[in-house]
Amino acid sequence: MAMTGVLRPGHAVVRVLDLEESVDFYGRVMGLKETGRDKNGRVYFKCWDERDHNSFVIRKADRAGLDAFGFKVRDKATLEKLDSDLKAYGVATERMPAGEMLETGERVRFQVPTGHIIELYADKKDVGNGMPYVNPEAWTPDAEKGIAPIRMDHCLIYGGDIDGNRKIFEEVLGFSLVERVKLEDGVTDLATWLTCSTKAHDIAMVRHAEDGKLHHVSFLLDSWERVLRAADLMSMNRVSIDIGPTRHGVTRGTTIYFFDPSGNRMETFCGGYQWYPDMQPVTWTWDEVGAGVFYHDRKLNERFLSVVT
Amino acid sequence: MAMTGVLRPGHAVVRVLDLEESVDFYGRVMGLKETGRDKNGRVYFKCWDERDHNSFVIRKADRAGLDAFGFKVRDKATLEKLDSDLKAYGVATERMPAGEMLETGERVRFQVPTGHIIELYADKKDVGNGMPYVNPEAWTPDAEKGIAPIRMDHCLIYGGDIDGNRKIFEEVLGFSLVERVKLEDGVTDLATWLTCSTKAHDIAMVRHAEDGKLHHVSFLLDSWERVLRAADLMSMNRVSIDIGPTRHGVTRGTTIYFFDPSGNRMETFCGGYQWYPDMQPVTWTWDEVGAGVFYHDRKLNERFLSVVT
Amino acid sequence: MAMTGVLRPGHAVVRVLDLEESVDFYGRVMGLKETGRDKNGRVYFKCWDERDHNSFVIRKADRAGLDAFGFKVRDKATLEKLDSDLKAYGVATERMPAGEMLETGERVRFQVPTGHIIELYADKKDVGNGMPYVNPEAWTPDAEKGIAPIRMDHCLIYGGDIDGNRKIFEEVLGFSLVERVKLEDGVTDLATWLTCSTKAHDIAMVRHAEDGKLHHVSFLLDSWERVLRAADLMSMNRVSIDIGPTRHGVTRGTTIYFFDPSGNRMETFCGGYQWYPDMQPVTWTWDEVGAGVFYHDRKLNERFLSVVT
Amino acid sequence: MAMTGVLRPGHAVVRVLDLEESVDFYGRVMGLKETGRDKNGRVYFKCWDERDHNSFVIRKADRAGLDAFGFKVRDKATLEKLDSDLKAYGVATERMPAGEMLETGERVRFQVPTGHIIELYADKKDVGNGMPYVNPEAWTPDAEKGIAPIRMDHCLIYGGDIDGNRKIFEEVLGFSLVERVKLEDGVTDLATWLTCSTKAHDIAMVRHAEDGKLHHVSFLLDSWERVLRAADLMSMNRVSIDIGPTRHGVTRGTTIYFFDPSGNRMETFCGGYQWYPDMQPVTWTWDEVGAGVFYHDRKLNERFLSVVT
Repeated sequence: MAMTGVLRPGHAVVRVLDLEESVDFYGRVMGLKETGRDKNGRVYFKCWDERDHNSFVIRKADRAGLDAFGFKVRDKATLEKLDSDLKAYGVATERMPAGEMLETGERVRFQVPTGHIIELYADKKDVGNGMPYVNPEAWTPDAEKGIAPIRMDHCLIYGGDIDGNRKIFEEVLGFSLVERVKLEDGVTDLATWLTCSTKAHDIAMVRHAEDGKLHHVSFLLDSWERVLRAADLMSMNRVSIDIGPTRHGVTRGTTIYFFDPSGNRMETFCGGYQWYPDMQPVTWTWDEVGAGVFYHDRKLNERFLSVVT
Repeated sequence: MAMTGVLRPGHAVVRVLDLEESVDFYGRVMGLKETGRDKNGRVYFKCWDERDHNSFVIRKADRAGLDAFGFKVRDKATLEKLDSDLKAYGVATERMPAGEMLETGERVRFQVPTGHIIELYADKKDVGNGMPYVNPEAWTPDAEKGIAPIRMDHCLIYGGDIDGNRKIFEEVLGFSLVERVKLEDGVTDLATWLTCSTKAHDIAMVRHAEDGKLHHVSFLLDSWERVLRAADLMSMNRVSIDIGPTRHGVTRGTTIYFFDPSGNRMETFCGGYQWYPDMQPVTWTWDEVGAGVFYHDRKLNERFLSVVT
Repeated sequence: MAMTGVLRPGHAVVRVLDLEESVDFYGRVMGLKETGRDKNGRVYFKCWDERDHNSFVIRKADRAGLDAFGFKVRDKATLEKLDSDLKAYGVATERMPAGEMLETGERVRFQVPTGHIIELYADKKDVGNGMPYVNPEAWTPDAEKGIAPIRMDHCLIYGGDIDGNRKIFEEVLGFSLVERVKLEDGVTDLATWLTCSTKAHDIAMVRHAEDGKLHHVSFLLDSWERVLRAADLMSMNRVSIDIGPTRHGVTRGTTIYFFDPSGNRMETFCGGYQWYPDMQPVTWTWDEVGAGVFYHDRKLNERFLSVVT
Repeated sequence: MAMTGVLRPGHAVVRVLDLEESVDFYGRVMGLKETGRDKNGRVYFKCWDERDHNSFVIRKADRAGLDAFGFKVRDKATLEKLDSDLKAYGVATERMPAGEMLETGERVRFQVPTGHIIELYADKKDVGNGMPYVNPEAWTPDAEKGIAPIRMDHCLIYGGDIDGNRKIFEEVLGFSLVERVKLEDGVTDLATWLTCSTKAHDIAMVRHAEDGKLHHVSFLLDSWERVLRAADLMSMNRVSIDIGPTRHGVTRGTTIYFFDPSGNRMETFCGGYQWYPDMQPVTWTWDEVGAGVFYHDRKLNERFLSVVT
């Protein structure tokens, strides 16, 4: 049946240290299309194949990191219901008025146990992907401007009570567990990957001493050759690469982790299998966490568990 | 939100003229794994990365074609509800007992206006994809036995009243229109592509003088290089290729159309974008139907509208 | 040992029916870089990764086709020797002065038995590939302007006495036979592929009733995904595709054959194995010529033996 | 003109610590085909698409490393001439009789200034690549057994007097300089890449305190997707990966460096441009050596200059 409830990751709002440097990075190097700037100094971007006005927003601040991560929901009725369900669950919600973010409808805003701000909204203006709805071509020149990912795909957040997060996402927001990594005790989750759709993950979280941290925002590429191209462009633009091109055991997707000029980690992700609710979650044990995260090396690097913003 | 209702195409039951020749074709050349044979002479196959016992079933008959196309639904309650909804809509349904098809639960069976038999079921035995649910590898040697598609993906059926079909799929089964091709009058649909998920299509149909016809059953490959490999394997095995490797304008997916030994057309499909319910349907006008179907040639070949089983 | 003698295909001079239409086709769509125009109306192009000033030259004429195909040789001494050897063999040669073609040294020009004009030269100005000889990047933005092949790779010519051609190429110019297709008699060559290097072919010829005909000039792409991209760009630009993307059995290379606005056939070629002189020539028999030319379809299309300029 | 003189790397003879463990590694995991064992305990392998009997030979010893690296030359006359030229240059040569290595003709054996043993030979038995010389298919199932590289491609050796090496390779053996990396003084070569053909490199060397060391023997893959497949297979077989998949700035080729069970480093290499003698050598300065070796990271890892066998 068509998707209902929460549809997909809708926007990531990220703090950067230098606005114009970041505009150049996200615009020219990443190939996101700048779609607006608001009076609060936020700069809005969308990926070339997205239709909604924005999916990635930056604002200058003293410290890098993730301001908020928003999900698009099916419609206003869904927004109302989820707001109500969150409150019933005991989560305080706040309403951000339509237009507070450019071209975005009313937002329901709440904090999850790991300290992160999550938002839900039903409306964003459809500005199109550069192709008509009648007799479109397969892609446009925008697909080759910079790294040019297809869409903003998910994020990986770090914080303490990831179990508390998961309960909210599953029981209130209708997400499902796709994969998990266990700590050494074999019981406690080190990390969980959740979907609200058939994607291998729409959000993921890792248990971490500090709350409210961002591991990465992820952008989708649609082939392994586009991943190579992305790595080449990162090199040409002297972007600091954390790791990759390589593969994740979790989700099987191929990946590059890299850093924006402010030290926020970003990812280009490609692949991942299609998840359906009749699937069993996949579990990675502590001794194989290396393979789960970095499938080729089969070990974590020193930055995976420690470098966050 | 996780998928509800109808989840995905679950099984295609296809008539073949020579059973063992077809078993060799689907087993050895296509790389489907044979999982069983029943007392009615049906031979069951699954794709290597599917977990359910079967997704492709063949039986010997005097004429080729599609016996039935089945969709998996979320659970028994959904099955009951959809059966009831179909009846309420005026569609006569029939119940096939659990086990009538190997390792498959009870099926709700009905005929759509184009004469095709559609089935719904909630249960098929999980026989796995050869990998454990704990610390799995990225793929197995089965991924390189024959063409080895990931899953049975969709079918394209031909018949008269595709509008009647569409109403049932949309209004009763919860499918949505993704793309359509218009006839010369600019109003009547020549073809429609429908999804019950976020796939670019879970079923498609083309208006045709005769009812009950099969254009193709489609199998998913996950890269353009796997498409080349598939075409090479078809050549080595002297499989008759209809067209491809090429791209469809509709869904943007890359494709090879080819024929099984009985003349049934099959497809290896790769790609396609992710569909969400906030998207507008894409329309192809009659003058561009060529590009919609065969994007590189931008014209139909003589077989597309005429060769069916 | 480093290459000596004839190094590689150096320039193709092609007749077009409308100059500016062709400049747009070869410049914008093909992504060749225009490097000059001479007082004789010839327009010069190079591929982005070539260092020599030009490899593809067009001039307006009343009928399409190939004016001449030139090979670069190691140095002036080689040029002198080959001129002398050709004369000794009985081939009349003509000298074209340095600068007669832009940025090109003196050319030795002769006609082969199939009526085609072949040229040899030692010098073309090195204008570079856009990257320095110190600390170069892996590629430049020019690699994504239009189809952007890496280099002009070879041509396939049609004419009567391909055996006579072959003797000259082998005995005088130092080429070697890589692959051949036999006619029905099993003895006479229908087609031969010759190399002057380790490339699977530097020139190829097909026996044809008419002399002096061009089947195609070929441009090199370096991945199967670039082949898909090329086909997509051809579609977007309404380029007439003859066949492809597909594979050749001969050389194993992947290919698209397409037509320029004047009806000259061009090719994007990718792959092909490395040839060494200790290899045996590969032979295709008449009954398998289809697979040799179009490996997936395993049959010729109606245009392969008949449509030439 | 067809290759003359030295044609290509012909065999690498490598010392391993445990023979059967290494036979399993090179046979099953690498997918090399075992073609023989001799009375001296050497085990011979060839790559699936090579025609000569062997290109990779292992023998058990107390320490890992490279015994010898052999090049195939055009014919016996060339072998004689090169032997004579080496002696005239002052290099002592030794003759190994035909058959001393299985299915290999007489070898001329000499030591270069860096202490490595280099061999030249004209004959190895043509055992074929599994496909006939008449109407061959594009590849065989051997192309999917293990990593299955196409051929043994080159080696990278470490030693002191790489300048002395280069003089011999250039002046006596007809090799040419393709790329070089300079040390901090901007004058002394840290590393040089040499070709005897049109390959971006047939042998490479890095200046190192110790003589006679092996950095890696390299095997050719023909697509970036095959590189991913190789990395996946390495992971599945718990092979220790040094770095990759990534790209080299030098030659532009894509690569994975990994270790055999004895600690010998091996490489799967893909791509690289075609070199011609009218090209200028490419130079990498000391400050960019990182990009030259590991293009994406643009820095060396701690193992590149230190871990050798």
